Amino acid sequence: MFADKLTEKIMSTGNPTVAGLDPRIEYLPECIVKEAVGLYGKSLKACGYAIKTFNKQVIDTLCGIVPAIKPQFAYYELYGVEGMSALFETVSYAKEKGMLVIGDAKRNDIGSTAKAYSDAYLGRVDLFGELKPVMDIDALTVNPYLGIDGIKPFLEDCIKYGKGIFVLVKTSNPSSGQLQDLISEDERIYERMACLTAAWSEGLTGKYGYGPIGAVVGATYPEQAKRIRELIPNGYILVPGYGAQGGTAKDCLPSFKKDGTGAIINASRSLVFAYKTARWASSYNGENYLEIIREEAIRMKKEIQDAFAEQNAGE
Amino acid sequence: MFADKLTEKIMSTGNPTVAGLDPRIEYLPECIVKEAVGLYGKSLKACGYAIKTFNKQVIDTLCGIVPAIKPQFAYYELYGVEGMSALFETVSYAKEKGMLVIGDAKRNDIGSTAKAYSDAYLGRVDLFGELKPVMDIDALTVNPYLGIDGIKPFLEDCIKYGKGIFVLVKTSNPSSGQLQDLISEDERIYERMACLTAAWSEGLTGKYGYGPIGAVVGATYPEQAKRIRELIPNGYILVPGYGAQGGTAKDCLPSFKKDGTGAIINASRSLVFAYKTARWASSYNGENYLEIIREEAIRMKKEIQDAFAEQNAGE
Repeated sequence: MFADKLTEKIMSTGNPTVAGLDPRIEYLPECIVKEAVGLYGKSLKACGYAIKTFNKQVIDTLCGIVPAIKPQFAYYELYGVEGMSALFETVSYAKEKGMLVIGDAKRNDIGSTAKAYSDAYLGRVDLFGELKPVMDIDALTVNPYLGIDGIKPFLEDCIKYGKGIFVLVKTSNPSSGQLQDLISEDERIYERMACLTAAWSEGLTGKYGYGPIGAVVGATYPEQAKRIRELIPNGYILVPGYGAQGGTAKDCLPSFKKDGTGAIINASRSLVFAYKTARWASSYNGENYLEIIREEAIRMKKEIQDAFAEQNAGE
Repeated sequence: MFADKLTEKIMSTGNPTVAGLDPRIEYLPECIVKEAVGLYGKSLKACGYAIKTFNKQVIDTLCGIVPAIKPQFAYYELYGVEGMSALFETVSYAKEKGMLVIGDAKRNDIGSTAKAYSDAYLGRVDLFGELKPVMDIDALTVNPYLGIDGIKPFLEDCIKYGKGIFVLVKTSNPSSGQLQDLISEDERIYERMACLTAAWSEGLTGKYGYGPIGAVVGATYPEQAKRIRELIPNGYILVPGYGAQGGTAKDCLPSFKKDGTGAIINASRSLVFAYKTARWASSYNGENYLEIIREEAIRMKKEIQDAFAEQNAGE
């Protein structure tokens, strides 16, 4: 099952991080863009080609260091059918290379429709009477605004096919409190969602104590993360907001348990486009982007290990 | 702008409904499925072919009667790249035939990512320095769990390109209350969302009094719809839940204003797969599905008109 696989991947790499593959054409290395435009002009097809070329290189670079990728679907849908085609190729390639794939799609709908999303991404699709996998990724982010009806079809596929979901609990963006921090009967909405998440996963935990339902909790809200960690003893926490959004390694720690398990930190722009950041700009010569991505992945891993060490020393 | 166009389309057809195009292979007419499988085997490509063939026929049938289509993205994503390709063809065809297109995608994310979704569906995409439309539909459903950050990019494209969004306020599914009915500071979450929706649209209303931001309010909750209608004087209400989910024409009325404007009722399965329903089963001979869809569209229009007449007579 997903939570077990993720735990083992994190143990074998010693690295509780996930690489967010959010390919924006304007951030891709010029050499790849040039080749794509040379082949297909300034077209959606060129975007798709550039994205899959870049992603495969990044996967080759990171597959021994980082346990999982997290493609953000919006950046593939942005380029229409060509973008979706690049997403499918990226997913296949990552799986071939032994990386776990967390689809960041934040899907949600009423039960029958949520089932269609789940069939597409986690389960099987009925092709004229035969059940076939379509994307078949390891986990998906989902939005809980519709309650359990919108979660159940995903949960069923989690159980059936050993998959996972991450429910949005406390998101990393500045206005996340507008709904999520509202207080109802002495608890905040995100607390309520955290409790529901834990309850939905009950009795389904794997050998490391984690079940199929995790939570998304932004690194930008460490205080809230501490509370959510207490409320969800049986779920992984996916932590966005590190790096470009301002969260530090230290801000991510409250999402982990005391034993250092139970969370995975996402880095998108700060890692995959490291060669575009202030930290690495002076090292970038237009060609060594993979080297820089690799260096940043190792630097991030060390930053997290150091933060853990500092926390443990302070106790 | 979208709300004006929608109002005029409803006036010219006399029909405040939208056809939900949620193509499930197992519901499609056998003759289309047979042709598709004959051409492409039991493959995703056959699914894509069957879907676009069926959708085009349905659009031809309904374009003079129904103002808009609402493709539910899940049922296209279900068939991978081939499904997305069928979605793009469906959208183009509906636009050619003069129908409005409301994308039912319930997208949501942090600001930068919500912008990517908005660029893809409502706005323009940066293709190597040139801004180009990708899907360019009229409106999109969005989920408000992340607050205004996740809405703003869509709203900006609404203003720039005359588009619309429908924010999930009170959804039609049984467990919608699990989050949406929670009470915070004397108001329910859906009431809070309704108020925010109205506030976000302020100062942006068109010539019929409606702005770019509408709300999704299920026909299955008529009491709540009444309250939401009061709270959103400046927004359209998209009403799912009619037909297969159990909502009647009468249940949809509270989403309209007293003058009969301000809402649009969605029918998916009950309309587009009418030949599979108990009402029409005895009329279906395996070939006359378009005739039955047409009859059902006219029957539904009349049912709504009758419900209005009854309401007006009772006052």
